[in-house]
Amino acid sequence: MLGVRLTAAYDGAGFAGFAAQPGQRTVQGALSDAASAVSGHAVLVRGCSRTDSGVHAEGQVVAFATARELPPERWVAALNSQLADDVAVRDAVSCAPDYEPRFDAVDKTYRYLLHVAEVRDPLLRGRAFHLGRLLRGGRSLDLDAMRAAAALLEGTHDFRSFRAAADARENTVRTLLSVTLEPGHAGDPALWAIEVCGTAFMLNMVRILAGTLVEVGRGKLSVDDVAALLRGEGSRADAGMTAPAHGLTLLRVTLGRAQASPPAP
Amino acid sequence: MLGVRLTAAYDGAGFAGFAAQPGQRTVQGALSDAASAVSGHAVLVRGCSRTDSGVHAEGQVVAFATARELPPERWVAALNSQLADDVAVRDAVSCAPDYEPRFDAVDKTYRYLLHVAEVRDPLLRGRAFHLGRLLRGGRSLDLDAMRAAAALLEGTHDFRSFRAAADARENTVRTLLSVTLEPGHAGDPALWAIEVCGTAFMLNMVRILAGTLVEVGRGKLSVDDVAALLRGEGSRADAGMTAPAHGLTLLRVTLGRAQASPPAP
Repeated sequence: MLGVRLTAAYDGAGFAGFAAQPGQRTVQGALSDAASAVSGHAVLVRGCSRTDSGVHAEGQVVAFATARELPPERWVAALNSQLADDVAVRDAVSCAPDYEPRFDAVDKTYRYLLHVAEVRDPLLRGRAFHLGRLLRGGRSLDLDAMRAAAALLEGTHDFRSFRAAADARENTVRTLLSVTLEPGHAGDPALWAIEVCGTAFMLNMVRILAGTLVEVGRGKLSVDDVAALLRGEGSRADAGMTAPAHGLTLLRVTLGRAQASPPAP
Repeated sequence: MLGVRLTAAYDGAGFAGFAAQPGQRTVQGALSDAASAVSGHAVLVRGCSRTDSGVHAEGQVVAFATARELPPERWVAALNSQLADDVAVRDAVSCAPDYEPRFDAVDKTYRYLLHVAEVRDPLLRGRAFHLGRLLRGGRSLDLDAMRAAAALLEGTHDFRSFRAAADARENTVRTLLSVTLEPGHAGDPALWAIEVCGTAFMLNMVRILAGTLVEVGRGKLSVDDVAALLRGEGSRADAGMTAPAHGLTLLRVTLGRAQASPPAP
């Protein structure tokens, strides 16, 4: 068997998340079906990030084992011809057949988009969280307070208050390498990007971090409140809302390349 | 009767164009239905640009007459509560009841987005023209040649070769104030924006200009070929393709404000 590692992009709107589930259209299912069709045998692709239902990706990493011998660059066109237009393979390289992208990921970067405007924008629909009525009296968000809170989130902390109740993992300590805010993203003054890079995440963690930063920007939570949550004072209910899935995109994954083999000839 | 002038934005994918047509969902129809519901009587909104089916807008201008007395800013929320999420009113001001935005438009600016990449991007689907197989051997477009052709298009010319066959107007002389190219639009190196500002346009004209610039970028047409077309040598068949509607957005309209009255108290 040969191994193939892919970078994939998708619009999350049409998928019940990444992870395969019976009777649901999922990204893992769609990519596995395409890889199976090209391979001529059943394939289950392994992913790097189990993105929630509705979450987008520009740089999800998946890998699979196949009996089909194809130069890696041929896999891109072969798989894309099998895929619907809301998911695409961007590049392909050879890897070990048992390569596990999840274990090779050094860090992952997510971007959360806020649409900071009273009136909705039809062209940002499904891509950014429209704050609308959350902006009282047409006011914007307090960028300085949000940046101060973002700086506190960086580093190694107990993020137990920033995960979904359904996440039952015992170790809730995680390391965020950077949390940055970019107002005016993509040239649109009303579009604010929150970019979070970390080594590992818990269920809904980035969406809860985004929701918490929104509450800091609105003055509903203070920077001190966030500091207290990171000290383990309080619980999930004291952090911000889980911001909606459609504002979130998995941008890229840094791989250790420990298990990746050189490109096929 | 009172007059209201609106700026409207829409995702063109769900509309059979701006102009009302029986049995079709159109932007003019949707805005008229919303204005009728709020007014309590039948209203037909008048637009500034009859955008084609599938074309988007960030700054379409429409106006209508109403018996309903509402402060202009209240119209924004009242209309948006009646509209589906693929169309929105961005702002509203008072105007004369018989104000005709089409006659008050000094110039209109359109943006055409090209996705200059071999592999498609699901997150640009419906927003940019993916060149894909038009890029032979993975090559990009010749930006210098495209910019030289764009510079030729600026000014007052006979654009008879740059309009749809269905456009039967006798006077085919139009003035383009600027035609610019921006590679790396919105921070994406593969996204090239063509921005066209002009005083008046013919049917499909911006899409044919975009298609012609693509052919110049691919080396299928030379800058001299474009110069010859502008001198009246050749015909529609000698210009480039009509680039697909989903790449085009009406960005903004400059109004003369001759007929606009001051904001209501």
